[in-house]
Amino acid sequence: MRAEIIAVGTELLLGQIANTNAQFLSQKLAEIGVNVYFHTVVGDNGERLTDVIRQAAGRSDLIVFTGGLGPTQDDLTKETVAEHLGVELVTDELAMERIQSFFVQRGITMTENNRKQALVLAGSTVFANDNGMAPGMAYSREGKTYVLLPGPPSELYPMVDRYVMPFLTGLLPKKQVFHSRVLRFYGIGESALEERLLDLIEQQSNPTIAPYAKEFEVTLRITARAATVEQAEALIVPVEEQIRERVGQYIYATGETSLHEVVVKEAIQRGETIACAESCTGGTLTSLITAIPGSSAAFRGGIVCYTNDAKHQFLDVPQEVLASHGAISEETARILAENVRKRLGATHGVAVTGVAGPDPSEEKPVGLVYIGVASEGKPTIVKEIRLAGRRQAIIGRAAKFALFYALQRIKER
Amino acid sequence: MRAEIIAVGTELLLGQIANTNAQFLSQKLAEIGVNVYFHTVVGDNGERLTDVIRQAAGRSDLIVFTGGLGPTQDDLTKETVAEHLGVELVTDELAMERIQSFFVQRGITMTENNRKQALVLAGSTVFANDNGMAPGMAYSREGKTYVLLPGPPSELYPMVDRYVMPFLTGLLPKKQVFHSRVLRFYGIGESALEERLLDLIEQQSNPTIAPYAKEFEVTLRITARAATVEQAEALIVPVEEQIRERVGQYIYATGETSLHEVVVKEAIQRGETIACAESCTGGTLTSLITAIPGSSAAFRGGIVCYTNDAKHQFLDVPQEVLASHGAISEETARILAENVRKRLGATHGVAVTGVAGPDPSEEKPVGLVYIGVASEGKPTIVKEIRLAGRRQAIIGRAAKFALFYALQRIKER
Repeated sequence: MRAEIIAVGTELLLGQIANTNAQFLSQKLAEIGVNVYFHTVVGDNGERLTDVIRQAAGRSDLIVFTGGLGPTQDDLTKETVAEHLGVELVTDELAMERIQSFFVQRGITMTENNRKQALVLAGSTVFANDNGMAPGMAYSREGKTYVLLPGPPSELYPMVDRYVMPFLTGLLPKKQVFHSRVLRFYGIGESALEERLLDLIEQQSNPTIAPYAKEFEVTLRITARAATVEQAEALIVPVEEQIRERVGQYIYATGETSLHEVVVKEAIQRGETIACAESCTGGTLTSLITAIPGSSAAFRGGIVCYTNDAKHQFLDVPQEVLASHGAISEETARILAENVRKRLGATHGVAVTGVAGPDPSEEKPVGLVYIGVASEGKPTIVKEIRLAGRRQAIIGRAAKFALFYALQRIKER
Repeated sequence: MRAEIIAVGTELLLGQIANTNAQFLSQKLAEIGVNVYFHTVVGDNGERLTDVIRQAAGRSDLIVFTGGLGPTQDDLTKETVAEHLGVELVTDELAMERIQSFFVQRGITMTENNRKQALVLAGSTVFANDNGMAPGMAYSREGKTYVLLPGPPSELYPMVDRYVMPFLTGLLPKKQVFHSRVLRFYGIGESALEERLLDLIEQQSNPTIAPYAKEFEVTLRITARAATVEQAEALIVPVEEQIRERVGQYIYATGETSLHEVVVKEAIQRGETIACAESCTGGTLTSLITAIPGSSAAFRGGIVCYTNDAKHQFLDVPQEVLASHGAISEETARILAENVRKRLGATHGVAVTGVAGPDPSEEKPVGLVYIGVASEGKPTIVKEIRLAGRRQAIIGRAAKFALFYALQRIKER
């Protein structure tokens, strides 16, 4: 199957955003063995979009569009594809209901142009938009499939994972399946991981092994091609074993998850709870935990003790400790973790204090971070780490390290 | 001048990297008023690259290539463009010297394939590569210009800034600048904003008016084309005035910034401080504030009072209030804002309590959020808002609304 990806949007041609949607879709299509031959970006212009569609139809079997499904006048993708195909646009009732209820929930009047978002190509498979208004759709004719997807990544990514990939897999000749397993790492960088596994990565063609870095985590995807899932699985198992022998201590989970999700789930499963005291991460650690639906069962609360006063007042860090050791110290991390645990009656107290930058603090270097984990009936641990990068990277990595050490502690029990 | 950008490289089609080079070049070309009509990505394949070149030559005056100038067999850009134009490739002596000295400096033997990197289109303008080996080049014929540039951003960006932009500016018919102003909105959706301004958007061709939505904020870009920045500015001013007359109350800033950055800067400027009490936003509000470098001057700390116990213990919300009004109530939002302000000694206390979902809480619907802003010597305000979307969208929008109301209060003083 020959595929191409067409992104529609003048903001891309003005350089306001990068075409990361094409990257995301290319990865997804590569995973199921679909070859992508072209990416095209075209502006919100009916004539040029028509030219691009005509050309794509002449050379590809699968044409995936992103963007241009919104309510405004310059959203032209559906209309232009419909005209090219000679197919009508009809209202998708389910999408219309969702759009209407969106406005009802917010207590505001729906403007007329929003009706346009519920229009779909007559006879197409409709993909629900669980994070926005415009649904996606796929229309197949004479061996060619046109897939139209929304532009905002927050809408596109879940739609692709939930609905579009199963649909596309169904289009493939049945002889082979692509099956993959994702190993999730923490505490090792992407290049160090690749170096430790380089011979395996280079030798393997089925399964393939591909490392990715995203949101301060590193993952490794092992993908096998076989006649059945079971046969693919049989190809993956020995490779996974070899990887685990070398770098197993850094693997914290498999599959589509994240450090914060695993921490919340493991705590809930054990009936345990967590409380956080954050200085340099400034709320990022708790925002990761509370991003997980149902986290209230495991999360007792957090203190963003950004000032010495807040550390002293809410978490009883003695003024002497702040004066002698400083706020960025092993001692302060220990007291913060222990006291936030006690004050909020949690099983585990997790504390982060450090220098996010851009400037040093207490004459301590940017990137120096202390993480404390205090737990009921266990000795408190404090880890000193040194992180590189800019402020946001240091904050993100420090929060993830705190989750990683918390997870190690939770799993001990 | 009609331009397009062609990136050559299979790694882009596999989704290993995003085409950020096209974004960079688009921004640069927009700055000098060159309209980019297409971005294309094609793999390291001579036949498909030839097709793409032929098509570009048929529709554009300026064709900018990135990638495929390296030493290996699959680097095909120069060779394919040369064949299309019927032009020879010749060795550029200066580039050859640089390549040879690169190897001499490192004390390693130059492999034969590196000679290929010094080849350029005969009769082209050569751009030195100050950060790598392969030079860039531009070849013009019959009003069409082909610009070939290296793929690695560390080589491309400085080459463009130093050599390519002056070259391209020289190609332009007469001096023209594009100048734009970004207006940043909150409290109004993208489609509602467009509807309020539709006649202006449609009537205007110079300046143009374009709305964008990103990270739960809406922006409007007004772009004017003129001989000088001053003349462009003179075209923008009356249009901006018309926009402000209609929807000025939603504009919180102009230019490249964000709600959280404006809140932090406005507070610092006034010597004021902020403290936060977060329930449903779970740390996201404080993480936005602390993401801004220097925020410690304005931020006193935050309490993520996720449980009733935390609300009572840290912020003295009376048990009676929690029992009668509930944690998700105007009353609780008011007490949280007032008490977090007092306890942390801040000028402003900002509180958020609501239902992020996926399930209702206290029999209150998902999306119901109360925001309290308490300030020294001012009556506390509490706003009730109703948000749609999934958990992460509700959390993100609630945090931004809290920043918006805090900003209104800060600006009052």
